[in-house]
Amino acid sequence: MSRQIETEFLQYVKKIEAYKEALSLIYWDLRTGAPKQGVEQRSEVIGMLSSDVFNMSTSKEMAIYIEALEQANDLTEITKKTLEECKKDYDRNNKIPAEEYKEFVILRAKAESIWEEAKAGADFALFQPYLEKLVGMTKRFIGYWGYEGNKYNTLLDMYEPGITVEVLDRVFGELREKIVALVQKISESPNKPNTSFLYKHFPKEKQRQFSLDILEQMGYNFQAGRLDETVHPFATGLNPGDVRVTTKYNENDFRTAVFGTIHEGGHALYEQNISAELIGTPLCDGTSMGIHESQSLFYEKFVGRHPSFWQNNYDLLKKYSSGQFDQVEHDDFYRAINESKPSLIRIEADELTYPLHIIIRYEIEKGLFNDEIEVKDLPQVWNEKYEEYLGIKPDHDGNGVLQDVHWSGGMFGYFPSYALGYMYAAQFKNALLKDLPNYDQLLEEGDLLPIKEWFTEKVHKFGKLKQPLEILQDVTGEGLDAQYLVDYLYEKYNKVYQLV
Amino acid sequence: MSRQIETEFLQYVKKIEAYKEALSLIYWDLRTGAPKQGVEQRSEVIGMLSSDVFNMSTSKEMAIYIEALEQANDLTEITKKTLEECKKDYDRNNKIPAEEYKEFVILRAKAESIWEEAKAGADFALFQPYLEKLVGMTKRFIGYWGYEGNKYNTLLDMYEPGITVEVLDRVFGELREKIVALVQKISESPNKPNTSFLYKHFPKEKQRQFSLDILEQMGYNFQAGRLDETVHPFATGLNPGDVRVTTKYNENDFRTAVFGTIHEGGHALYEQNISAELIGTPLCDGTSMGIHESQSLFYEKFVGRHPSFWQNNYDLLKKYSSGQFDQVEHDDFYRAINESKPSLIRIEADELTYPLHIIIRYEIEKGLFNDEIEVKDLPQVWNEKYEEYLGIKPDHDGNGVLQDVHWSGGMFGYFPSYALGYMYAAQFKNALLKDLPNYDQLLEEGDLLPIKEWFTEKVHKFGKLKQPLEILQDVTGEGLDAQYLVDYLYEKYNKVYQLV
Repeated sequence: MSRQIETEFLQYVKKIEAYKEALSLIYWDLRTGAPKQGVEQRSEVIGMLSSDVFNMSTSKEMAIYIEALEQANDLTEITKKTLEECKKDYDRNNKIPAEEYKEFVILRAKAESIWEEAKAGADFALFQPYLEKLVGMTKRFIGYWGYEGNKYNTLLDMYEPGITVEVLDRVFGELREKIVALVQKISESPNKPNTSFLYKHFPKEKQRQFSLDILEQMGYNFQAGRLDETVHPFATGLNPGDVRVTTKYNENDFRTAVFGTIHEGGHALYEQNISAELIGTPLCDGTSMGIHESQSLFYEKFVGRHPSFWQNNYDLLKKYSSGQFDQVEHDDFYRAINESKPSLIRIEADELTYPLHIIIRYEIEKGLFNDEIEVKDLPQVWNEKYEEYLGIKPDHDGNGVLQDVHWSGGMFGYFPSYALGYMYAAQFKNALLKDLPNYDQLLEEGDLLPIKEWFTEKVHKFGKLKQPLEILQDVTGEGLDAQYLVDYLYEKYNKVYQLV
Repeated sequence: MSRQIETEFLQYVKKIEAYKEALSLIYWDLRTGAPKQGVEQRSEVIGMLSSDVFNMSTSKEMAIYIEALEQANDLTEITKKTLEECKKDYDRNNKIPAEEYKEFVILRAKAESIWEEAKAGADFALFQPYLEKLVGMTKRFIGYWGYEGNKYNTLLDMYEPGITVEVLDRVFGELREKIVALVQKISESPNKPNTSFLYKHFPKEKQRQFSLDILEQMGYNFQAGRLDETVHPFATGLNPGDVRVTTKYNENDFRTAVFGTIHEGGHALYEQNISAELIGTPLCDGTSMGIHESQSLFYEKFVGRHPSFWQNNYDLLKKYSSGQFDQVEHDDFYRAINESKPSLIRIEADELTYPLHIIIRYEIEKGLFNDEIEVKDLPQVWNEKYEEYLGIKPDHDGNGVLQDVHWSGGMFGYFPSYALGYMYAAQFKNALLKDLPNYDQLLEEGDLLPIKEWFTEKVHKFGKLKQPLEILQDVTGEGLDAQYLVDYLYEKYNKVYQLV
């Protein structure tokens, strides 16, 4: 009996996933060159398909499946976990009154376009009432959903199940202290790298060729993917056989495309290597934003910014460039691409100062949802924290509190994932070294496949079958620990800035 | 009361159209570079969305809408015509027993892959049983659908409403006789154009630049479209604000891309200029295959192969090419690109012999569905007709009876549209000259917008609001008449081959 319901349930879920795949393709298309004048009507299509997904996920039919199967004890592992995901979605969406959810969706769409305007005009007052409403509604939602320990935990749980304020206070506290001290030491160092040669003209088409070569080295499967150009780079997995990478080219700074491609390539390797048996279920996805980010950051930082990686690829880069590196020694190149300097914009930050940008956002969000910070005070709070942690202050709110899109989309609780991913990556690196002690040599020889294979076995293939902290525990034998990232940063920057 | 049902009906239809738009994007993507390994799962998505479209079009709900609204006399013109389209679809699909329809869909998928194999191996016997089943099932369907006058009329009606065997026998008979005679005269002419300079290396990127310039001249709106590369060129209208053109580049024959782009550009102009008020209804589409083809062929033949067009664009072509035309006079160029020579492959045929390829297929299909020809005899019938009309004979079935995909997809009745479009185009040209008597001069000056505007007012904007023969009558004041095309061909080829 339950076997038949199980089959029907999986068929039902498969249909939801099919709509989601169509939506992913539409979004990819919109961000890689869909004609402008078709967008309005395309939004209608998005609306229809999104409603289908929402309606099916919250339907009476879904409730019946959940109820019928929850008691079954002969479900396959995949069905069981799929059911858990569906139930989580069902509960989350059904607890909010339909009218309020609709209001929220409309508010969000409006807020995003107001935010764009506000950012362009550096006009926080314009955005403030919308942000107040978004925060207010989200607080009401937390009321519906309930919370454990801290209200903000409910938001964290949406992006990084298992991670709480208690955990973040600990690891972010440690990170903040250690990074602030290191940033200070660097600012006093007389041994600054020369970076002038980075900003020479490097034709887009040549950058693309180099990017393709690097993706190939990483083990990105071009039979299951493609590389396109976009304004805000991303990777998207339509299914494991179709995982697309996008990048952006700056002809006066090749690093944008190269490190952007490696970063998105890391995301893409994750999605390409999820086990095929999970296709058609909600498990066929990265398990969390943080674990996803661990994959992109691992490749960007521990591969792409590693001296051995450039030992192997510097000649190739020279070949594609127009002579800008001809007089530059490998070591000087390595130091230049690892320059660290406090800056205002998160997405342009170097790898050392980046976590501070995240920690600032975390502290602010936590304050907002625990009624310790008011929206109207955000510009002031923001600027004070930038001054305190990074020693710099935005000249206007456009490159300060208004810089990120997330809040206008109601995505509170998302930011911590970026820094979590970085810590996970450092912990994974430590575990990986035990299995691949010749890591530096592999990079030097351009033999990156064993690294991909290691991650596929340890992380990728499971999709959402395992929770993020379960993966971390299984791979490293430990819980979340900031020390590995701190050690990496100290060792690296001591070297780059010749601090010791 | 009926106003509310009308609104609900239009909302229902809008949803069907949204699924179709998502499907169009998926097909475009599959044909312009979707990663191979994702295709299997993408087929599942196509299957789900196609089922949604089919189920909604044939549902009880649709039946209720049709019944409720058919009697209403206060419907808007758009609702009325939308209802007619929906009813036509509903009747066609509901008359076939569900089991048989399913069997047909499966057979078709199988037959297409067998056909590919059979074509590659020039092995008609392999394909024969599948083709027999396809023809057999289609005959049964005609039984369900009914017919007037001739069984084949029911198939013609699916692609070109209003066109019958009686009409085609008349116009195709005339065309065949006149073209065969002209082909004969040309073959005897001593004044053959020199074409050797056509086959020089012309880099793809330069061909693309030229193609973009020509599309721009035609009035193709790049804010509502884009040009991509594909294997089998096509244009696709996702909505009037997003109509995409694809083309194919042959670096040793620039004509493939140039005339292909102009052809698809003609299709695209049609779809870009359908009235916005038809968006979200089935009327937002070309009214028939033949009228659609009239637009592509008009631009390909009456614009793109016109001497005045090249008066204006020959220098531009020279600029993009690598010197291959430097020693070639405009007139010699014009004659070369208009060379006519009987050939075996329809899609490679020149504009004079092309209709003969269509007429052969028409005669064969008509014979098949009137039990005058048997599938097993097709290779022989085919070869005899090629010999009779074109004076050449396929050396094997791969470039003979197996060359086209249509039959393997069960698309019987489609071929005539190609030649109908050509005749429509010639008739439109004659009408257009009355409004734009300075046609040649417009081409010479590259001022093609008045031509596009004329077609928008006369054809494009109506979408499916008007039937094909209604448009022909309204624009030309006449019914279908082969004479205009015959006159054009005689005048042109007399000149190219200096026959007179």
